[in-house]
Amino acid sequence: MPGFTSMADLRAACLDLPDDDAAAAAAVARREAQLTKPPKSLGRLEDMVAWLARWQGRAPRLDKVEVLVFAGNHGVTAQGVSAYPAAVTAQMVANFSAGGAAINQLARVAGAGLRVFSLSLDEPTADITQAPAMGEAEFLSAVAAGYGAVAPDADLVCLGEMGIGNTTAAAAVAAALFGGGGARWAGRGTGVDDQGLARKRAVIAAALARHAAVLGDPLRLAASLGGRELAAILGATLAARRQGIPVLLDGFVSTAAAAPLTKLRADALGHALAGHVSAEAGHRHLLDELRLKPLLDLDMRLGEASGAALAVLLLRAALACHTGMATFAEAGVSDKAS
Amino acid sequence: MPGFTSMADLRAACLDLPDDDAAAAAAVARREAQLTKPPKSLGRLEDMVAWLARWQGRAPRLDKVEVLVFAGNHGVTAQGVSAYPAAVTAQMVANFSAGGAAINQLARVAGAGLRVFSLSLDEPTADITQAPAMGEAEFLSAVAAGYGAVAPDADLVCLGEMGIGNTTAAAAVAAALFGGGGARWAGRGTGVDDQGLARKRAVIAAALARHAAVLGDPLRLAASLGGRELAAILGATLAARRQGIPVLLDGFVSTAAAAPLTKLRADALGHALAGHVSAEAGHRHLLDELRLKPLLDLDMRLGEASGAALAVLLLRAALACHTGMATFAEAGVSDKAS
Repeated sequence: MPGFTSMADLRAACLDLPDDDAAAAAAVARREAQLTKPPKSLGRLEDMVAWLARWQGRAPRLDKVEVLVFAGNHGVTAQGVSAYPAAVTAQMVANFSAGGAAINQLARVAGAGLRVFSLSLDEPTADITQAPAMGEAEFLSAVAAGYGAVAPDADLVCLGEMGIGNTTAAAAVAAALFGGGGARWAGRGTGVDDQGLARKRAVIAAALARHAAVLGDPLRLAASLGGRELAAILGATLAARRQGIPVLLDGFVSTAAAAPLTKLRADALGHALAGHVSAEAGHRHLLDELRLKPLLDLDMRLGEASGAALAVLLLRAALACHTGMATFAEAGVSDKAS
Repeated sequence: MPGFTSMADLRAACLDLPDDDAAAAAAVARREAQLTKPPKSLGRLEDMVAWLARWQGRAPRLDKVEVLVFAGNHGVTAQGVSAYPAAVTAQMVANFSAGGAAINQLARVAGAGLRVFSLSLDEPTADITQAPAMGEAEFLSAVAAGYGAVAPDADLVCLGEMGIGNTTAAAAVAAALFGGGGARWAGRGTGVDDQGLARKRAVIAAALARHAAVLGDPLRLAASLGGRELAAILGATLAARRQGIPVLLDGFVSTAAAAPLTKLRADALGHALAGHVSAEAGHRHLLDELRLKPLLDLDMRLGEASGAALAVLLLRAALACHTGMATFAEAGVSDKAS
């Protein structure tokens, strides 16, 4: 597993990103134009294939797709910000191992491998209203765990999470990055009532005030307001970019986790698509801020990479059209010009 | 193949529809509430499974999914309303047979069978600016072809079409049913330029004027303005409803083809979902009129049942979650109340 020796070391890695491969994308576009359909009539399916090629840097393929789910616990649950007890994080990890969760079914349907990473569940991060969620070493360790989780030979990774309390952490990160406070970013998460929602908003305000000194630094704010699973997703997103692996982000927490990278380099998420837009209130705002147009909008709000895994189905379908369709010449179909 | 002896006979069949099975849907909802996820957190995936059960009238399954594509030719192409020559309809049918079209790839990925029905391609319907597209017998024959195409043991059918010129026919049908004229309903289809679009609008206006006397009768307007593949989709939609088979509609033409049924019975499309919303301008308006919320919005405009076949992937994923997930009790996960 690659280590980061300091925040400066991690920052340097976040700035040192390879470019996309425009020639690979152009090769896709040339073939699309010859296939037996009106130009661009497969819409975003065509864009997806070009995007795969652009970031894989070759003829696109989806032979090895992996769903990576990172789990963490959050001291801020002491503030009553979740509808479920913190013990559910570990219980759901056990459920992932037993094959009983939604993501197990969705990964199987999507033809994707599933790996789950428990990040020190018995040592919750600090309550962000009281202290930084993580110290520097803890944060760098979680980032490295995510970085190392990405298999260098993967063709695509889906990044998801599990962590009771983590929509509060994600909202605090989003508020720190893009402004607007808890009113803009707090949602009902797994299902808090009106009082719980009011508590979340107050907690986010308190956390932003408590950590005002670091809000100008994207990595330090991620350490102070986020959580281990968010840090791991940041690391995995970075690793994927540096290794030519496209990423499907999932919901609000997954997207918020990767978002700090864009404050270091505006193009840091070029290799990422939003698998879906969640019903969690802040996600749509966040995708707007990041100029990510979601592939699906199905009122889901589960996390676990569930929306990203669903979107793999669309990518597979898009790639099947690209590789399997006949050209106008092969099929003897008259092109538009004829 | 069931025959309809007269328009009155067909109308009677359109009015004689079985109800949904609320108990089957309720059984799905009871199980969903026990699965290891926050209530309703799978959003529309949960709704889809309940919808399958409601219209299948049993525990939902997707063992036999069929994509039915109906092809027809249109005399109105003489008016220069399409970017492609009419010969492309038959050429694309050959391409379907050879496995080279988008729908071949998408049906395979979706685990669906594909059957294509060529409806008298060498005898185009009449130019709707000059005469009714079809006489009564021709129309009833095409409806019956679609009706008979639905296998009684199918668990789900996707209804698509191929027919150069048929977005003009569909726009005329939609305008007749819902008002607004060519300005509201005509789009670029396979890709006409501004002049072609202006011609489509004028053609629709002329057709509506020519057939003003029948516009109050949903079936007669379908015969006068539509086409054989549209009539077949109407018949297939009706057959599916009467046999307890849920339907995924595809794009603008597919939806316009089924729409006349709702003027005979407002609930006639309860068993149908819109697989996607197409980039063809009128489709979004039409779905709004029918209160159908599309499952996908990917800027596609190909027809061939392509959007419906993609949506099968979502249904399969939804059903996999419903049947494969563990309950809170099975997994030992604390429910919200605990």
